[in-house]
Amino acid sequence: MMKPFGKLLRRADAMRIINENVTQITRTESVPLEEATGRVLASDISAGFNVPPFTRARMDGYAVKAKDTAGASKSKTKKLRLIGVGYAGEAFEGTVGDAECIEIATGSPLPKGADAVVMVEYTRLSGKTVEVIREARLGDNITPEGKDIKAGEVVVRGGEVLSPGRIGALAALGIASVQVYAKPRVAIYGTGNEIAPQGQPLRPGQVYDINSYTLTGIVEANGCVALRRGLVRDNREAIIAALKEAATFDVGVFNGGSSVGSRDLVAGIVGELGVVHFHGLQVKPGKPTLFGIVDETPIFGMPGYPTSCLSNAYIFLIPALRKLARLPPAEMRKIRAKLDKPIEMDREREYFCTVRLEDGKAIPVFKASSDITSMTHADGMIIVPRGTGKLRSGTKVEVHLLP
Amino acid sequence: MMKPFGKLLRRADAMRIINENVTQITRTESVPLEEATGRVLASDISAGFNVPPFTRARMDGYAVKAKDTAGASKSKTKKLRLIGVGYAGEAFEGTVGDAECIEIATGSPLPKGADAVVMVEYTRLSGKTVEVIREARLGDNITPEGKDIKAGEVVVRGGEVLSPGRIGALAALGIASVQVYAKPRVAIYGTGNEIAPQGQPLRPGQVYDINSYTLTGIVEANGCVALRRGLVRDNREAIIAALKEAATFDVGVFNGGSSVGSRDLVAGIVGELGVVHFHGLQVKPGKPTLFGIVDETPIFGMPGYPTSCLSNAYIFLIPALRKLARLPPAEMRKIRAKLDKPIEMDREREYFCTVRLEDGKAIPVFKASSDITSMTHADGMIIVPRGTGKLRSGTKVEVHLLP
Repeated sequence: MMKPFGKLLRRADAMRIINENVTQITRTESVPLEEATGRVLASDISAGFNVPPFTRARMDGYAVKAKDTAGASKSKTKKLRLIGVGYAGEAFEGTVGDAECIEIATGSPLPKGADAVVMVEYTRLSGKTVEVIREARLGDNITPEGKDIKAGEVVVRGGEVLSPGRIGALAALGIASVQVYAKPRVAIYGTGNEIAPQGQPLRPGQVYDINSYTLTGIVEANGCVALRRGLVRDNREAIIAALKEAATFDVGVFNGGSSVGSRDLVAGIVGELGVVHFHGLQVKPGKPTLFGIVDETPIFGMPGYPTSCLSNAYIFLIPALRKLARLPPAEMRKIRAKLDKPIEMDREREYFCTVRLEDGKAIPVFKASSDITSMTHADGMIIVPRGTGKLRSGTKVEVHLLP
Repeated sequence: MMKPFGKLLRRADAMRIINENVTQITRTESVPLEEATGRVLASDISAGFNVPPFTRARMDGYAVKAKDTAGASKSKTKKLRLIGVGYAGEAFEGTVGDAECIEIATGSPLPKGADAVVMVEYTRLSGKTVEVIREARLGDNITPEGKDIKAGEVVVRGGEVLSPGRIGALAALGIASVQVYAKPRVAIYGTGNEIAPQGQPLRPGQVYDINSYTLTGIVEANGCVALRRGLVRDNREAIIAALKEAATFDVGVFNGGSSVGSRDLVAGIVGELGVVHFHGLQVKPGKPTLFGIVDETPIFGMPGYPTSCLSNAYIFLIPALRKLARLPPAEMRKIRAKLDKPIEMDREREYFCTVRLEDGKAIPVFKASSDITSMTHADGMIIVPRGTGKLRSGTKVEVHLLP
């Protein structure tokens, strides 16, 4: 029994509906700092102390009172008495008095009494006497306490992605672990009685599961955890059980069973257990796609054909996953190229035509929705608006590079 | 004792030298297909069988002999006898004879005798009689065996990165695990007696280790495994031991100890144990950088100042890591923006000025090489050529977005 699609939805409308129905994750978890790059910080982190925590030498040289070097030159040196050494990690504990100095290493705390560092290049050392040949001004070659980060300052805000630079600021504060948003858990289900799992020989009429693997790659590359929950038989009981299980995760992604044939049960059962927000898209490949909610969990019903499924994952699923995970939208890089062969299309649907790039030319590689090699050999896709009809060879096109 | 830099090297020369001295990894390892996305395939994989492995229905409908439907229309239907059903995953074992058909589900093998599928929309069923209302041509609505992939065809080549589309082709072939190039192992060492590890209170004169954490993020995001080998004391014995250990990994990255002060021992010891290819770069931040080889292992001596270290990691380390890991070069996205404040620079060195982006304006956030917040608050960097001098507020600049 067929249950035909209603009016097919345009891409923009589908994306708006998905966006309205996917909410950002609120669960958080603690991760060690060395594993936190790329994660999303849960709440503002303020500095507990100044960075650097003390005023320090920015150069190797001598810590001095600037006034004692006033007017120094090669011909008119200023002589200072060397009274000690400030090593890195080991402060000189005394005080620098008038006409005194200490040798100081980059990073060593500036001793009491000193207010500048003379670079070693501008000095001559003889015994316990340092001759300064260039005047230092107050504050020269020192980094004041708190110059990098002031105690109390917010260094990284909640919701920011932890780039290496932000991780660095947290490390400067001695923060060994951070509270980040949890990675959303995405349950992936295959349907279709003809689909066989990897690792067993095919029986007549069977083909191997492709979609669970392509979807896993997409999910993991977009800040989520992929849970391959296996293959579901095309019957009510099995699909009801799978949908109920999916509703316990952050997202459920089904593939297959989303069309209008007698075995395409997913849309009907999503409607019984929850709500179907759309079913059927004005796109090629990827028309038999549904999106709904069961028990507050977004459910994607992706086409069973592997290129349709993966193409839709790039177009519709990635934005949803990234919103859920609180990551910024993925921006596909675009380049311009000349079409190397004509593209013929169905005028009724927006067409995502996959292409290979070679010497600045875009060579269409789209075979059919059922052929995974339409994606395997693709570097990107051309988005051909509905109604375009034919694009001639030589047409300048914009290619969206697949990430 | 100072050991001044020789002639400072330009960025392009440094990158050429690094590129000439970093060789692509040759070790391989087997990984399960579900973990293989983003990895680099070690050698060509050919199809062991045709995909699909049998000719199958592309639509729900009836498998027929095309000739039996010739001339069918609504007013002049062609009647066929329904002799069975071909379910998905369960082939109809008989043969379709003249004026016969079977009901067939999308994906089900085309039975012997049939050569086309009539879509269910173009039929009427009454009892065991199917009335066809539209003519089917030979091959209509079927996918021939091997249309997607032919047995013997190379589906993914050695050296290609396993995109979801390529993973899909391997899944179609029932390949449960693949041989990929191993992720290069990158050993990270901090030096500087003032550097304290996370998780213990700072003693006077100490600052926390920042570079090991920022470098870990960079290394892991570029196809390599980061091994934080800890903090090394500023003395010959410790640095010799660390360099010898580093030489057992694929790359050694030291931070600190690469300048010209008396405690900057790394360059000298790399020269004793191996060869220093360069020491000192015509860039700001990041001048005190060295690159050499010890026991065939590339050794990077990065500056100790956290912004210098991280800036250089973006500019010099990432290309090296990606070549080593056999990944394509990372292309920094570039956008144009108007400078919101003037930039003053040292004319002697190329300047990587970090900026924040706000409303299409680029706001310089570079404070000092020693200040990690120069990177923390950055969205990208402007590369200001050596000798530029000053860029006025309002200048149109190209911002390289940090990945």
